[in-house]
Amino acid sequence: MPNSKKTTTGSVSLDPLAIGIDIGGTGTKFGIVDRNGNVLFSSEISTRGHDEVESFIDELHNSLNALIEKSGGPGRIRGIGVGAPNGNYYTGTVEYAPNLPWKGIIPLAKLIQNKFQLPAVLTNDANAAAIGEMMYGAAKDMKDFIMITLGTGVGSGIVANGRLILGHDGFAGELGHTITIPNGRFHPGTGKYGSLESYASATGVTLTAIEMLEKNDTDSLLRKIPKGKLDSKKVYEAAIENDQLAKDVFEFTGKILGMALANFVMFSSPEAIILFGGLTKAGELILKPTREHMEQNLIQVFSNKVKILVSHLKESDAAILGASALVWEMKD
Amino acid sequence: MPNSKKTTTGSVSLDPLAIGIDIGGTGTKFGIVDRNGNVLFSSEISTRGHDEVESFIDELHNSLNALIEKSGGPGRIRGIGVGAPNGNYYTGTVEYAPNLPWKGIIPLAKLIQNKFQLPAVLTNDANAAAIGEMMYGAAKDMKDFIMITLGTGVGSGIVANGRLILGHDGFAGELGHTITIPNGRFHPGTGKYGSLESYASATGVTLTAIEMLEKNDTDSLLRKIPKGKLDSKKVYEAAIENDQLAKDVFEFTGKILGMALANFVMFSSPEAIILFGGLTKAGELILKPTREHMEQNLIQVFSNKVKILVSHLKESDAAILGASALVWEMKD
Repeated sequence: MPNSKKTTTGSVSLDPLAIGIDIGGTGTKFGIVDRNGNVLFSSEISTRGHDEVESFIDELHNSLNALIEKSGGPGRIRGIGVGAPNGNYYTGTVEYAPNLPWKGIIPLAKLIQNKFQLPAVLTNDANAAAIGEMMYGAAKDMKDFIMITLGTGVGSGIVANGRLILGHDGFAGELGHTITIPNGRFHPGTGKYGSLESYASATGVTLTAIEMLEKNDTDSLLRKIPKGKLDSKKVYEAAIENDQLAKDVFEFTGKILGMALANFVMFSSPEAIILFGGLTKAGELILKPTREHMEQNLIQVFSNKVKILVSHLKESDAAILGASALVWEMKD
Repeated sequence: MPNSKKTTTGSVSLDPLAIGIDIGGTGTKFGIVDRNGNVLFSSEISTRGHDEVESFIDELHNSLNALIEKSGGPGRIRGIGVGAPNGNYYTGTVEYAPNLPWKGIIPLAKLIQNKFQLPAVLTNDANAAAIGEMMYGAAKDMKDFIMITLGTGVGSGIVANGRLILGHDGFAGELGHTITIPNGRFHPGTGKYGSLESYASATGVTLTAIEMLEKNDTDSLLRKIPKGKLDSKKVYEAAIENDQLAKDVFEFTGKILGMALANFVMFSSPEAIILFGGLTKAGELILKPTREHMEQNLIQVFSNKVKILVSHLKESDAAILGASALVWEMKD
């Protein structure tokens, strides 16, 4: 096992491992992780295409079993940590997650525990990523930071005084659903108007591009893309080809994101905001307007104090690492 | 000394007392408090009318000295706790407070300590009020709550996991300055547009009334009030006389406040939001629209979970009590 630094060969006593699972709106990533944060084996399945959560867990079980066998069998696995949108650490349930196919209250930790016959613990996917960043990434040694995941949706994990803010009920940190533009864009998953997620997610970027293409008739590379095929990646590709409309899409997205970040700063005054996920690949195209508009909306006492950092962890790793870190904190 | 429960008579060993000072945009309240939270003596001076902070501290010293003498002299006072807008617990300074007459960075704790020859500790006025509520008021036994002060300005103190959120630099909890209406009303103190404070403060209520009176020509009791004499109290008095325009002012204020509270809930998921200060005297006139619009903007997972409570402490007491509580935590 060349990937594992701490495996003792020629002995039955092998260091325990943890499984980390990151359930996203589009894909579910998972890996087997050692105590030092090395992801030994990892893979991915689609979250979509399973109307029933049981069928999703069946597929997850099949895929993970292959990795478990490679790692030395279930006896080496200490437990399973799961990050999922609207995941609740206290109850182990996923409740009314707008971006997942399963509605209502899903006892996800229990279902996984029963299927794998291993102890399982659950938290919000972005909380898991924040723990991953704090233990192994850009937030190492920070006691006050906010992690924002810019993927299919917008998630967040907030750390203050060195601890995750879970809130009274375990659901704190739903910053993607804060209202940034009152009476703004409709979010079909929540039924609310003007949330950060409706603008600053991959979906939001695509919608902004469609709106801008419809609103005026300036030339744009994006007009060549068939309707229904346009996505945030294509907007990015056009923007680096210097397409003005595509650049305007990121400028607009950064403006709204920056304004929202200013509000978050005035809440918990973090040392840094760590951005993570697909949209951060647009680099300065989105970071520059985000920084500018954050500063523009901050009162003087916060001016030029708060760093905006992009996660350096491999995209899938932060959440897998964070989820797996939950396992080491489990009681025996 | 009939007000003090723990004073031992006939002995030189008397229980120590603490001074609590609450510096607001308009008035500064202060009191002498025992360990059980009894405010033994209290008084007030105006914060305005002192261009130099030294002249303010001179007047504060004169007024407080009378109370100190009544309490048995400076030997009985353990220390001074101060709550002030933009007050920083870590540095003891007040920095760029938009609602105070003194600009820049003021080393307030040090100035007070030197003048009184007593140890002094400083925090944000709303943080002090939050501590007061947690120790003696509506937030007793709560570990996760947000305190919002609706006075001349809008202040806030946030408690999560049983601890005040101070942030990386000590300035967390400036919720009054979060942007609620992008490109909205100008705030002359901060130079920013659309902050919660520009709407949901006493000043904001007055401005909303003036705007509504100018925008249309419906009849209103408020038209009889000379320009420059209109204030939030007069709007309240007209509203309880069933004046439609005055009622609309509170409806509008509650709408914006409710939307902002929804965002705060999605940040830290508190058990309750405690409202405090002058505007809460409007009761259901402002609470009803606030509650409705908070619920309207919350995603399902938070629906009908978060209590909006009005502080039961005598208005001046929460901040004095909270500020004085800082003294008991001082190191010797």
